[in-house]
Amino acid sequence: MDFRFATEVRVRFAETDAQGVAHHAVYLVWFEVARIDYLARFRGGYPELRAEGIEALTTEAHVSYLAPARFDDRLTVLCACGELRGARFRFDYLVERNGERLAEGWSHHACVDAVTHRPTRVPAWLLEEIASAES
Amino acid sequence: MDFRFATEVRVRFAETDAQGVAHHAVYLVWFEVARIDYLARFRGGYPELRAEGIEALTTEAHVSYLAPARFDDRLTVLCACGELRGARFRFDYLVERNGERLAEGWSHHACVDAVTHRPTRVPAWLLEEIASAES
Amino acid sequence: MDFRFATEVRVRFAETDAQGVAHHAVYLVWFEVARIDYLARFRGGYPELRAEGIEALTTEAHVSYLAPARFDDRLTVLCACGELRGARFRFDYLVERNGERLAEGWSHHACVDAVTHRPTRVPAWLLEEIASAES
Amino acid sequence: MDFRFATEVRVRFAETDAQGVAHHAVYLVWFEVARIDYLARFRGGYPELRAEGIEALTTEAHVSYLAPARFDDRLTVLCACGELRGARFRFDYLVERNGERLAEGWSHHACVDAVTHRPTRVPAWLLEEIASAES
Repeated sequence: MDFRFATEVRVRFAETDAQGVAHHAVYLVWFEVARIDYLARFRGGYPELRAEGIEALTTEAHVSYLAPARFDDRLTVLCACGELRGARFRFDYLVERNGERLAEGWSHHACVDAVTHRPTRVPAWLLEEIASAES
Repeated sequence: MDFRFATEVRVRFAETDAQGVAHHAVYLVWFEVARIDYLARFRGGYPELRAEGIEALTTEAHVSYLAPARFDDRLTVLCACGELRGARFRFDYLVERNGERLAEGWSHHACVDAVTHRPTRVPAWLLEEIASAES
Repeated sequence: MDFRFATEVRVRFAETDAQGVAHHAVYLVWFEVARIDYLARFRGGYPELRAEGIEALTTEAHVSYLAPARFDDRLTVLCACGELRGARFRFDYLVERNGERLAEGWSHHACVDAVTHRPTRVPAWLLEEIASAES
Repeated sequence: MDFRFATEVRVRFAETDAQGVAHHAVYLVWFEVARIDYLARFRGGYPELRAEGIEALTTEAHVSYLAPARFDDRLTVLCACGELRGARFRFDYLVERNGERLAEGWSHHACVDAVTHRPTRVPAWLLEEIASAES
């Protein structure tokens, strides 16, 4: 996987659990933070998508946990977008701490009309911006 | 405080933190669970309120933490509703584990119109049901 | 998949997001709730495992989202345990609302010594109880 | 209140609820983020406290919600520490968006020995650093 985008998160105390590590469900939240930061570079990003009456649903998510993250760790969440076809797209993620791989994952998404909840194409402006960013 | 209603929650692993106890922010979520269970006894409860175009906002919240709750603890969240005046009402809470007091708190709420976000009176049917439940 | 165990969760208001549905990360929390309820039938369950100095780590997780869950929905989380080999085991999940399939998923886990964090076999008592429950 | 420290948070999609605003319990998480950032300026901050065998418990928390925060809002969380006496201290908070006050609150804390859970004085180095930062 070739990642051209990264965002930073810091492990919050509220995100840790009684094993003393970041709880495994939180990675999906970090993936979302990365996804939104990724899209924020393009026009109005995800808020703009929502303003255009489009919601992006998560249809599938996967995480492989390689090593634990701990309280106050500064993490890099790399992400890339691809497989854009019609209403659907995919994100890949890698979570690192100082170059050490802690987790990797991916998610599938579908654009739907916010009112009818019917699938709707990813807007052309977003397709073009992502294609340009990933090429 | 005289509590006539109680609900049960069990401490989820995801709700614990690296101190090995339930994270302090989670109590506000449990209070909300208790509030919604409390209201569920009356007509359609909180979902009915929302269906009538009314949202109940939280305007103030307070928690005193007396003793920690731990993973898998079975907790009793007692709650009572009062001080209903116009659009406003108040809930009081007590969190217990086998009779031991772990936390107490309260929250203030205001009903608003879901569209205009203007304050709107607590519906008469709900006022009557709460008055009857608490008397 | 043949599920012989199920637990109930109710969608909390805190678990919804601005799309008006349960946030996709919450499913991993519900899977965990189901897993812990599943194990609770055997001796002391997951708390007993921890008391024996064993932590069960989540090494992989997957969710397919089929239809949204909404505030106050009463969900059934079915789960089954299998593929127990040495330190490792797997859980499968199905989330239903009145028989409608909302999500399915699975997770992989590994037992480690709580102190050394080295892999350690799933205790024999638990292997036997699970084998008996699933057969 | 005179705030000399501020930190930034951005409202995550996972932090919103079905009212389309940041869920009220999340403010306690943001307060904690601010508190930890505040302490991070002093020697090793909160992780250093924990490394010295001291846990800081939250004993009381209060939030007044003045106006809602929405998805992707960039918030400033101002905070100040005071009332340090023996094992106890207090934090005050103000959450702003572009100068608009969204919420204010405070929390009380107590230092305890991580092993015995008995109250233990706030370390002298931390007292001095906070006194110097707040004066």
